Amino acid sequence: MAEKWKKTALFVIDMQKDFVLPGAPLLVDGAAAIVPDVIKAVQVARERGMLVVWVVREHDSLGRDVELFRRHLYTEKGGPTVKGREGAELVEGLEIHEGDYKLVKTRFSAFFATHLHSFLQTSGIDSLVIVGIQTPNCIRQTVFDAVALDYPSVSVIVDATAAKTPEVHSANIFDMKNIGVATPTLSEWCEAN
Amino acid sequence: MAEKWKKTALFVIDMQKDFVLPGAPLLVDGAAAIVPDVIKAVQVARERGMLVVWVVREHDSLGRDVELFRRHLYTEKGGPTVKGREGAELVEGLEIHEGDYKLVKTRFSAFFATHLHSFLQTSGIDSLVIVGIQTPNCIRQTVFDAVALDYPSVSVIVDATAAKTPEVHSANIFDMKNIGVATPTLSEWCEAN
Repeated sequence: MAEKWKKTALFVIDMQKDFVLPGAPLLVDGAAAIVPDVIKAVQVARERGMLVVWVVREHDSLGRDVELFRRHLYTEKGGPTVKGREGAELVEGLEIHEGDYKLVKTRFSAFFATHLHSFLQTSGIDSLVIVGIQTPNCIRQTVFDAVALDYPSVSVIVDATAAKTPEVHSANIFDMKNIGVATPTLSEWCEAN
Repeated sequence: MAEKWKKTALFVIDMQKDFVLPGAPLLVDGAAAIVPDVIKAVQVARERGMLVVWVVREHDSLGRDVELFRRHLYTEKGGPTVKGREGAELVEGLEIHEGDYKLVKTRFSAFFATHLHSFLQTSGIDSLVIVGIQTPNCIRQTVFDAVALDYPSVSVIVDATAAKTPEVHSANIFDMKNIGVATPTLSEWCEAN
């Protein structure tokens, strides 16, 4: 049982101030409501000895490494989730501990143009559990890439992930279920062994 | 003429304390000697309005994102070029300015599992000039990837790059010349227009 959790990583995706706090430049409306559940998921992961991977965006202050469709958000004053600035920080209640891993990405998927897959493979990880925001973009792209990369077990905790609207969230959870992804509630996942 | 330099990036590769300073854990013997030439290359690049890209290694304190063959160098006390520690810093005389770009890599090539190519393409860069260490590994792998990625112009400044021995340096410069890479001296490059 313990062996299983040692091979499982919890991904906490994009729980950064610029996506979550009221008035944030790239606010995901459903994000603030899931913070307590994300905190709980991290706590349970730690109790189980799971690897916690903090997936975050950190961009150049001029936006030169941001997707083209978002570059207009960046001026000489910066823009969303600029590296080293407050908006890129994790929201209160979430913090990186020793032994955790921080993975910086510049696109939706945590696997796109990053070394994440190699890191996980050489860390003996074969199962992924995903929380954070937002369901149609970073969550879904990361999940589809994980499936394409042949991770045997990929789970999305349905009430510890969120989108701009409940409808968008549900429609995306539906699609992910259809490619074999598990979608437990947080309490179901906490009871699993 | 100015137009040409705006499309050209200078890569400064791995000029970090843990590779360069006396007694460094991964000392490249020829590295200290080229520091003045690297500083000069950066200065000339800035005068020309070129993009300066600082390519560095920054690893997990436990070494979990290091190549397998180097993981034995990492213990609970850390290892070479751990993110946030002194050994990962640039050597004295080299510093990142506003408008420069810092690219963190975990393998030899600056293009391997990074977003560098996308960043350069959307920044209008088609020419690369490379300085730093060390010739057979990070310099050469980055150069071969740049050629494979079809950058029309790739230059290695022959006296602003270095390896453990002059023989290894020369043998690798020879191989790179043979795939069409330009290998000017620093003074030749400074005189170019």
